[in-house]
Amino acid sequence: MSEISNYTYDEITIGQTATYSKLIEERDVQLFAAVSGDVNPVHLDAAFAATTQFKSCIAHGMLSGAIISAAIAMELPGPGTIYLGQSLRFRLPVKLGDTITVNLEVIEKTDKRGFVTLDCNVFNQNEQLVVTGTAEVMAPKEKLLLEKPTLPPVRIGD
Amino acid sequence: MSEISNYTYDEITIGQTATYSKLIEERDVQLFAAVSGDVNPVHLDAAFAATTQFKSCIAHGMLSGAIISAAIAMELPGPGTIYLGQSLRFRLPVKLGDTITVNLEVIEKTDKRGFVTLDCNVFNQNEQLVVTGTAEVMAPKEKLLLEKPTLPPVRIGD
Repeated sequence: MSEISNYTYDEITIGQTATYSKLIEERDVQLFAAVSGDVNPVHLDAAFAATTQFKSCIAHGMLSGAIISAAIAMELPGPGTIYLGQSLRFRLPVKLGDTITVNLEVIEKTDKRGFVTLDCNVFNQNEQLVVTGTAEVMAPKEKLLLEKPTLPPVRIGD
Repeated sequence: MSEISNYTYDEITIGQTATYSKLIEERDVQLFAAVSGDVNPVHLDAAFAATTQFKSCIAHGMLSGAIISAAIAMELPGPGTIYLGQSLRFRLPVKLGDTITVNLEVIEKTDKRGFVTLDCNVFNQNEQLVVTGTAEVMAPKEKLLLEKPTLPPVRIGD
């Protein structure tokens, strides 16, 4: 079983970076629709989406938010992080088949409370900036090395 | 088949509100873990979560963000909305079994560009404020009445 670890507040340095990539497939958009309840046809119905300014199905904007949150929770600072706040600007649509990469960079540390601020920039495979934002977290005080839980299989369709 | 509709920019008034509720179950947290990649045990492993300050499994913070985005996309303004930005403050954890309710309120309209700003407040079933934020959207210009797509069934587990 694989493991996940973290960076404690004391280990984190200004300018530290991490990246996290994900291919966005039809399956991801269907799962995000199921879990959020946003079943707008621009995400799910290719014929309808073709009539919109986007020309084809686009991912939910907040799916990129979910990927940013995973980058923070899995990579920097990683497990034990308390998520305090996030700002997001949705700059360009993410389409099915796009691979998005979250770039995180530590831009501020507040020693008294253990707060860390991270710049969040999400690019597609064409190096276009699709989402930007800033995250504020309370970094872990203790080093953790955890077994990565195995998710039960998720199946879509009959 | 049920339908979804929207409010155009011209129909939207300052002070207009909408609500959107969802019961957060283990299934939702598993699906959010699958789609985001955040498989931290605090969300998925009850025995581990019991050792944390939260005492039991908590939902991913950004799952509340996903529910806010669904409230905007499904209710106010609804289909045809372009999501421009979102700020989020995670104030209290959301636990499995909580029912969260998103309250949206229109606080600003910018006529020249069709932008609308909404206050977003998320409460749990005990009327505790769990997440707050502000959304900025471009409201639809045209009235839409759309068939609600039927999602393929999603099954978790063997």
